[in-house]
Amino acid sequence: MLPGIGVFGTGPVVKVLVPILRENGFRIEAIWSRTIQEAQETAKALNIPFFTNKIDDVLLRKDVDLIFVLCSPNLHAQISVKALGIGKHVVCDKPAGLNQADALKMVRAGQYYPSLISLINHSFRFLPAFIQLKKKIEDNYLGSPITLIDIRIQSGSLFTDIDAFDWKCDGVMGGGTLNLVGSHIVDLVTFLTGEKAVRVHGVVRNFTKQTDIIKGIRQITAPDFCAFQMELQDGILVTVTINSHTIGSSFQQEIMVCSSTGHLVVRGGDLFGRKDKNTEEVIYLDVEDLKCPMPNSALPKTFIKGLCKMVSALREAFLPVNDQAGWIKEPVSAAANFEDGLYVQAVLSAIKQSSQNKQWVKVSVMTEQPDKNELLSAVVRRTAISMS
Amino acid sequence: MLPGIGVFGTGPVVKVLVPILRENGFRIEAIWSRTIQEAQETAKALNIPFFTNKIDDVLLRKDVDLIFVLCSPNLHAQISVKALGIGKHVVCDKPAGLNQADALKMVRAGQYYPSLISLINHSFRFLPAFIQLKKKIEDNYLGSPITLIDIRIQSGSLFTDIDAFDWKCDGVMGGGTLNLVGSHIVDLVTFLTGEKAVRVHGVVRNFTKQTDIIKGIRQITAPDFCAFQMELQDGILVTVTINSHTIGSSFQQEIMVCSSTGHLVVRGGDLFGRKDKNTEEVIYLDVEDLKCPMPNSALPKTFIKGLCKMVSALREAFLPVNDQAGWIKEPVSAAANFEDGLYVQAVLSAIKQSSQNKQWVKVSVMTEQPDKNELLSAVVRRTAISMS
Repeated sequence: MLPGIGVFGTGPVVKVLVPILRENGFRIEAIWSRTIQEAQETAKALNIPFFTNKIDDVLLRKDVDLIFVLCSPNLHAQISVKALGIGKHVVCDKPAGLNQADALKMVRAGQYYPSLISLINHSFRFLPAFIQLKKKIEDNYLGSPITLIDIRIQSGSLFTDIDAFDWKCDGVMGGGTLNLVGSHIVDLVTFLTGEKAVRVHGVVRNFTKQTDIIKGIRQITAPDFCAFQMELQDGILVTVTINSHTIGSSFQQEIMVCSSTGHLVVRGGDLFGRKDKNTEEVIYLDVEDLKCPMPNSALPKTFIKGLCKMVSALREAFLPVNDQAGWIKEPVSAAANFEDGLYVQAVLSAIKQSSQNKQWVKVSVMTEQPDKNELLSAVVRRTAISMS
Repeated sequence: MLPGIGVFGTGPVVKVLVPILRENGFRIEAIWSRTIQEAQETAKALNIPFFTNKIDDVLLRKDVDLIFVLCSPNLHAQISVKALGIGKHVVCDKPAGLNQADALKMVRAGQYYPSLISLINHSFRFLPAFIQLKKKIEDNYLGSPITLIDIRIQSGSLFTDIDAFDWKCDGVMGGGTLNLVGSHIVDLVTFLTGEKAVRVHGVVRNFTKQTDIIKGIRQITAPDFCAFQMELQDGILVTVTINSHTIGSSFQQEIMVCSSTGHLVVRGGDLFGRKDKNTEEVIYLDVEDLKCPMPNSALPKTFIKGLCKMVSALREAFLPVNDQAGWIKEPVSAAANFEDGLYVQAVLSAIKQSSQNKQWVKVSVMTEQPDKNELLSAVVRRTAISMS
């Protein structure tokens, strides 16, 4: 039985997700936004029966059993933790919250309610090309261990579609290429290889400080460019360039996995491979999928397709169980959980630190909430030093 | 009047260069190789009247006025400096020598004989697409200052064509992607922008340790992968990925120059541009050039085309002057000189150091030869520490 859905947020992802959910038989029962006006407008546009700007009004609804948290990252932890406490399943947008402390709160809640679904929206894990890529790696297509993963993403500006200053323009609030695209890449690498980053180096830059719409006193601080390198547990080198500092270009992605005897490469949604001295062969070509309508959206097609497949997996998880909120694990077992979200936050945080310190930084996953008094005294100490 | 030419080396570049020189009317008078057998074979294959394994036998020939130094980098400085001292023009392969100390010797010699041509073979400076790119930058096509230069180069393995272990397999001897391809990129960025790198970060890796031919005791130590970032004087960020760790792929290059209001991008030998909200337009398409025959070589076409154009520029420099070794500066004024070669060595050296130290390194161009006694005592000191 499919659960009723409550959606938090009104951004482009929501506009793409709602029709996909409906296509898969889900009912959207309620939508929340920070302002009642935005909530009303989106509810009207998407034909959602209930709208509100009060979080509890969605969470406490009896007809809502699955929550999509797609609002600004500063509210991810608060909403997700509360939703789980009330007994609702949660799919939260990436990256989980603003930082590791947020993500850790979510991990604790997820562990406390193992009977509820708690997932991060890393839809790349459901893109057929990446599933095929993972399979080929596991089948030892490459013939020898992975040595290098070389990733390049180019897209038009992230800020052209934004019609007013919001969290996406703000680096600290979770906007920018590193949080919005880099998080997917960090997660994808672990999904593909089963390995985590030990050490990272990054250059994170904000070149676009204003647009035609966002100008004046408020400036964009979210990065539109990042390049980072990761060393994984077993020595694989990963190098990533994410460039959204080019006006108007379409989204392009190339993910190349190399060994000393071959390579596998995803370009767009297609998979190619080469081994020994053969020429590159087509392994998987992405074709139109009638079950997955492609809305006219600025979001990359590969993201949307992954989202379609993830929603379809959620349907498979809920549908066979007659109980109102019951589910089976298998269809969503490959999805990113809150622990994965915490790890991604740890890597993003190390990359940001590296960009400031100009050196490689060890990835350190938080296991306990930082002591607030300690944090405060550190701030006081630093202020005292800078004033002396 | 065109000078007679003496060639040092027998590698793939020589086999491509000699026909191009002849097409432009130059006579090849002599060829040198480390072994008399290699010299003889290449002389026969390329129909060169004189061959030797003694450096002076080429340099002292009366019919030779222009030297191409295309042998292993450890001999670049020795041959170039001696040739200039004897009164011969020199074109030396990139990067100049093994290190900054070598390059500095060459700079001093070049400064001492300003009436002689002393160039580094950075043929990208002569590729039409890059000349057009530079012109568009100068004409302010981008509308605002350059913020980012994003460069990606992919090629097949550098080691597949090597039929025996030689300097190209050895990192210290000057082989590998960083020296052979990275040097061109470092030079190109300065050619395009007029700016030099202040600080660099790099990851330099040697994944391919053996091939079907090179195996056993001797291992390849030359890097087949490097990724580096440079901060230029005025704050431009340059990010470069050079991946030759993919078997069998063809050479691909993309050099993208971004500002906040547009971008210019060279793909292969073609130039595209985009400004304001327009779509990307074709600015220059590389067409077949009858004056530039493309030999069947593993070398990238863009390298060969640049080489053609450079040789053609050398012809223009020598032809109008009747004096045996006289020349005019203008046609080769855009070429890289030995000072440029020293700067490139300084950057390469900083990138290698960064890859070891795992932090950003300041680029420091050598202005005096290191004191040998100081070097020795440093080695002794280090040995003493490691033994204690």
